[in-house]
Amino acid sequence: MPRISSAPMTKDQVESGSRRVLKGELGVPMREVTLQNGERLELYDTTGPSNPKAEGLPKLRAPWIAARGQGTCNTQLHYARHGVITAEMQYVALRENVEPEFVRSEIARGRAIIPVNVNHPESEPMIIGRGFLVKVNSNIGNSAVSSGIEEEVEKLHWSVKWGADTVMDLSTGKDIHATREAIIRNSPVPIGTVPIYQALEKVKGRPENLDINVFLETLHEQAEQGVDYFTIHAGVLLRYVPMTARRITGIVSRGGSMMAKWCLSHHKENFLYENFDEIAKLCARYDVSFSLGDGLRPGCIADANDEAQFAELRTLGELTKVAWARDVQVMIEGPGHVPIHKIKENMDEQLKHCHEAPFYTLGPLTTDIAPGYDHITSAIGAAIIGSFGTAMLCYVTPKEHLGLPDKEDVKAGVIAYKIAAHAADLAKGHPGAQDRDDALSRARFEFRWEDQFNLALDPEIARQYHDATLPADGAKTAHFCSMCGPKFCSMEITHQLRKEAAEGMAQKSEEFAQQGGEVYVEGGK
Amino acid sequence: MPRISSAPMTKDQVESGSRRVLKGELGVPMREVTLQNGERLELYDTTGPSNPKAEGLPKLRAPWIAARGQGTCNTQLHYARHGVITAEMQYVALRENVEPEFVRSEIARGRAIIPVNVNHPESEPMIIGRGFLVKVNSNIGNSAVSSGIEEEVEKLHWSVKWGADTVMDLSTGKDIHATREAIIRNSPVPIGTVPIYQALEKVKGRPENLDINVFLETLHEQAEQGVDYFTIHAGVLLRYVPMTARRITGIVSRGGSMMAKWCLSHHKENFLYENFDEIAKLCARYDVSFSLGDGLRPGCIADANDEAQFAELRTLGELTKVAWARDVQVMIEGPGHVPIHKIKENMDEQLKHCHEAPFYTLGPLTTDIAPGYDHITSAIGAAIIGSFGTAMLCYVTPKEHLGLPDKEDVKAGVIAYKIAAHAADLAKGHPGAQDRDDALSRARFEFRWEDQFNLALDPEIARQYHDATLPADGAKTAHFCSMCGPKFCSMEITHQLRKEAAEGMAQKSEEFAQQGGEVYVEGGK
Repeated sequence: MPRISSAPMTKDQVESGSRRVLKGELGVPMREVTLQNGERLELYDTTGPSNPKAEGLPKLRAPWIAARGQGTCNTQLHYARHGVITAEMQYVALRENVEPEFVRSEIARGRAIIPVNVNHPESEPMIIGRGFLVKVNSNIGNSAVSSGIEEEVEKLHWSVKWGADTVMDLSTGKDIHATREAIIRNSPVPIGTVPIYQALEKVKGRPENLDINVFLETLHEQAEQGVDYFTIHAGVLLRYVPMTARRITGIVSRGGSMMAKWCLSHHKENFLYENFDEIAKLCARYDVSFSLGDGLRPGCIADANDEAQFAELRTLGELTKVAWARDVQVMIEGPGHVPIHKIKENMDEQLKHCHEAPFYTLGPLTTDIAPGYDHITSAIGAAIIGSFGTAMLCYVTPKEHLGLPDKEDVKAGVIAYKIAAHAADLAKGHPGAQDRDDALSRARFEFRWEDQFNLALDPEIARQYHDATLPADGAKTAHFCSMCGPKFCSMEITHQLRKEAAEGMAQKSEEFAQQGGEVYVEGGK
Repeated sequence: MPRISSAPMTKDQVESGSRRVLKGELGVPMREVTLQNGERLELYDTTGPSNPKAEGLPKLRAPWIAARGQGTCNTQLHYARHGVITAEMQYVALRENVEPEFVRSEIARGRAIIPVNVNHPESEPMIIGRGFLVKVNSNIGNSAVSSGIEEEVEKLHWSVKWGADTVMDLSTGKDIHATREAIIRNSPVPIGTVPIYQALEKVKGRPENLDINVFLETLHEQAEQGVDYFTIHAGVLLRYVPMTARRITGIVSRGGSMMAKWCLSHHKENFLYENFDEIAKLCARYDVSFSLGDGLRPGCIADANDEAQFAELRTLGELTKVAWARDVQVMIEGPGHVPIHKIKENMDEQLKHCHEAPFYTLGPLTTDIAPGYDHITSAIGAAIIGSFGTAMLCYVTPKEHLGLPDKEDVKAGVIAYKIAAHAADLAKGHPGAQDRDDALSRARFEFRWEDQFNLALDPEIARQYHDATLPADGAKTAHFCSMCGPKFCSMEITHQLRKEAAEGMAQKSEEFAQQGGEVYVEGGK
């Protein structure tokens, strides 16, 4: 483990037996958990500085950006291809415990991205790619019928507290610009948006009135604010729309349905597709990454892996090359609703047709029958597709299909997805991923209850559930919990066995020596 | 779909837009959901008769059992091997929508079991095998530090309400006999137990004082009461115990740790293994099925798929043959904690060494880092291993590792596992499994909100979440929800598109006719 800096901690930073520490010259954040046995474990930390100023978070990256100067192409891909290891690359290398050169080469090959708009200097750089830890995105944002700015900033802080690696602001209601400004200035993680939502507001909600000018104007406005990645539905081609006609749930992407409506209304090719190079030029200037949207993703089990979905995927692969020609970083969005046996084909097709650009999937949900629990139906699919190489998992909350998530839903979604991402990291054999599992399991075996709580994804709930039946302080050192009670604790019995075995071994050794040293065999065989 | 009987329904049976109907002469229960468009869908139903008498549920199977008479071997396997299709087999054939002869042959081959003690006539027969729907088990039972009889019967009813297919009574505290009696008399599903827990109470909690006589006495008492399957830890052999010495969490099965202690204390072979044929003879008389316990299952990611675990599994395969020689039905218990990439090996080894006897796994949990959310860490593993052919999934609640589950935990566990089981059924391509997904997705696309709620695994939560932001009655017919709001609903836009396309198609047809009938091609190509 790398050395820990002795940066002074604020009171707020010490919580749940852990504290945020800043490592090295770049000040890379880690969460340091000190265990009851004196050991320390460092965990990846997304929470950001805990004492934001009134005007927003400190501008960590401002000097790095200034030092590089600004041209017409300022992307990490541009630098990577020129052999330059940027401060951002060094930062994520420390965060992921890999070599900076590995980071650079993965970005240069298009297999990983660091979404970092030059106008979002507050962000702590992170990397998305299948050679790195699997990441989790949380969606926030108001809709026409719900919530305000403060509530959305609160959901942002809540998201990163529980481990979200990026956050998408999907606001569609009023105050869309001001909401986004508040979110970006307070966000330690990359912010993604779906610019067509705001463009649509500008044309009074009529998709057919959209055009490339109002769209570019919107992109410019958002890029200036510091949005780190844009979802662009440039793969919804006119000829693909009829492929959705026999689907059970048609088109379920909001942006996808708007572009489909535009294409059919004008009987013209998607203007985002036609003008994609122009869009890429704009993104290159700010280093806004593309998240190429899957506007035709399946919205139910019956529609999974169909012609419409895979036709669009191939077009996203084509657009990836256009973006790369402009040095713009790219990731590819994926479904949606997919039964378990059809998940692998999604990863295989994506790798094949999108030239190994990182895959970023929404779940997928593995059944349609559990509204109210789609954080679970989709965490199953997310863990599986993550284990196949998907780089980032877009969370789904329990309110999916039913309403706008509140704070508790956001937490439930993030935690379910941290589980899926970590299960995938273990399955991929990611170096060091199992350290936390092992530390928690050792604490469990040794009845170090406080350590179990502090190492848990959600220390608060772990403690609360334990205390529900055994609230006394003494129970925190007891060699059992209420699940089995003192007499039936298998771990306690195992301890007794090991103790007796150790004593027995000493005795056997003595007998062995006394009897002249014949070999003793367990079980007499 | 088979014809619906017109059996009169009680008021209680009509809830959530669905009612329990009894089909055919045998009165096989199904839950019939009537949709707003007049269609009806029949779903598998575990809820049992809703108006139990004070003395317990009606004795559905009493006449079938009486008609067969009683000998020294009364098992379904015995009848199946003699070519007899019992009423129980006919019952499950109707329940699963398959041929009775298929049921008989799967049982005869040992690939499926119907756990039905002749002294539990209240149960509605169900089948466990990989050619059938994946089943879910819920664990209830008090421990020394918590809960009473009424509370446990309430958890039983709660479990079957949400879909548990079998229930294990893991009581270890006082009133163990009376608690079990109340549970069995009120249970429409098979009840399993771990008899060593009660045997241990009889020897004042000292495992080393156990012997075959006190054990057989306990089995006899429980078999007389009507327990449908016994977990027996006969595979924990003396020579396997040292294999757990270097594990992080040692032995985590309560029964396994007791038998390990017994073996080491006496330095003798496991008395359950040595006397297994005697135990099988007793089970044959009552038709108690074996659930061969995995006393050496891994308790953390680091210990998965190790020598101890697989050594025991091979012994369980050996014991399967001993049981089968006595015509006793067998299933095999499996882990535990297993990372995603090591799950398949578990299924492969089980099929290979246990001669295709049904596999019954606890999860597995795919990471150790989320105490408080182990219903999710394990639902991921359960869905995956279910898709590989595991026949029954033992649920895990959010309180796992922390304390005894309460009612809400039981519900959370059952729902998470119904999701996993159904996702596995879809992955296996089980005939008709997707009907419910398709019906719900059609309802979603057509904005039939009441149907979405009624078809959901948890209608109450689905309705509650929807109403949290849009409580008005009008919102139940609205063409949007609060998630996206009216302007951004992709499904509503798709409807507009399809409507316009249909109108456009009529217009194009007219043009086509007027212009002499040249072919019109989408997109001009």
